[in-house]
Amino acid sequence: MNPKLHPKRLLTIICEAEIERTLLVRLHQLGIRGYTITEARGQGEHGDRDALWPSSANIRIEVLCDDAVLDSLLDMLADEYFASYGLVAFVSDVGVLRPGKF
Amino acid sequence: MNPKLHPKRLLTIICEAEIERTLLVRLHQLGIRGYTITEARGQGEHGDRDALWPSSANIRIEVLCDDAVLDSLLDMLADEYFASYGLVAFVSDVGVLRPGKF
Amino acid sequence: MNPKLHPKRLLTIICEAEIERTLLVRLHQLGIRGYTITEARGQGEHGDRDALWPSSANIRIEVLCDDAVLDSLLDMLADEYFASYGLVAFVSDVGVLRPGKF
Repeated sequence: MNPKLHPKRLLTIICEAEIERTLLVRLHQLGIRGYTITEARGQGEHGDRDALWPSSANIRIEVLCDDAVLDSLLDMLADEYFASYGLVAFVSDVGVLRPGKF
Repeated sequence: MNPKLHPKRLLTIICEAEIERTLLVRLHQLGIRGYTITEARGQGEHGDRDALWPSSANIRIEVLCDDAVLDSLLDMLADEYFASYGLVAFVSDVGVLRPGKF
Repeated sequence: MNPKLHPKRLLTIICEAEIERTLLVRLHQLGIRGYTITEARGQGEHGDRDALWPSSANIRIEVLCDDAVLDSLLDMLADEYFASYGLVAFVSDVGVLRPGKF
């Protein structure tokens, strides 16, 4: 890995747009200060298996974090959101050019 | 990797917006039930090398899958889309918090 | 890794929308011919730590490249953009279905 890069975890959360504010508040409470949101649409497996449409209005939230913070975020998502919301979360390993920013 | 995470492949497809519906039908036929789409714009290497503009209207499709499904998706993309469409596809390893959803 | 895939680096840059054109010119000068842009919004750690809002208008630029080009891109971003702009860049390893395109 290029020496300018520092290892971090990239957590991507895809969820219904209407829970954006409450979820951002929770992320903030758990120490997340930087995030990126893109508007998205899509369909989850929970939907009608024979229907491609309609897709729902989603957002895609990205946060960079360390392992310790990641663990607390995953616990929060699993405990508070999975039972009630159509939410997907996945994690990838990245090298960040400016780790001090997060 | 956090024990809440399960390994999956994240396939990202960037293509012309106008082929969205036909491509989603093919993904659905190959077993994909969940997907996320974001609107994008950009330029591929096939364009004029001296021109930065204009960028075209693209979409960015993300699907999570296992290796077996990934293989069939890559075969389909290579066989049916590369000859005729400006399409880019790349794969990364991710850990998914809720694998049952895909 | 599926034999149809070729290893590449995916560089994601999140920055203020207003520097899009100048940054694209620099990427082009360093050899980047293909890129994908999505509109985004967000907040960086440099902002008010007690405020969740407002988020700023950002763009999310993705480019696929080899290590040699990546090094030159990271040098350029570190030297020319970090001091003056709220910019985040991170790199992940991906397998690309159509490496000749980039």
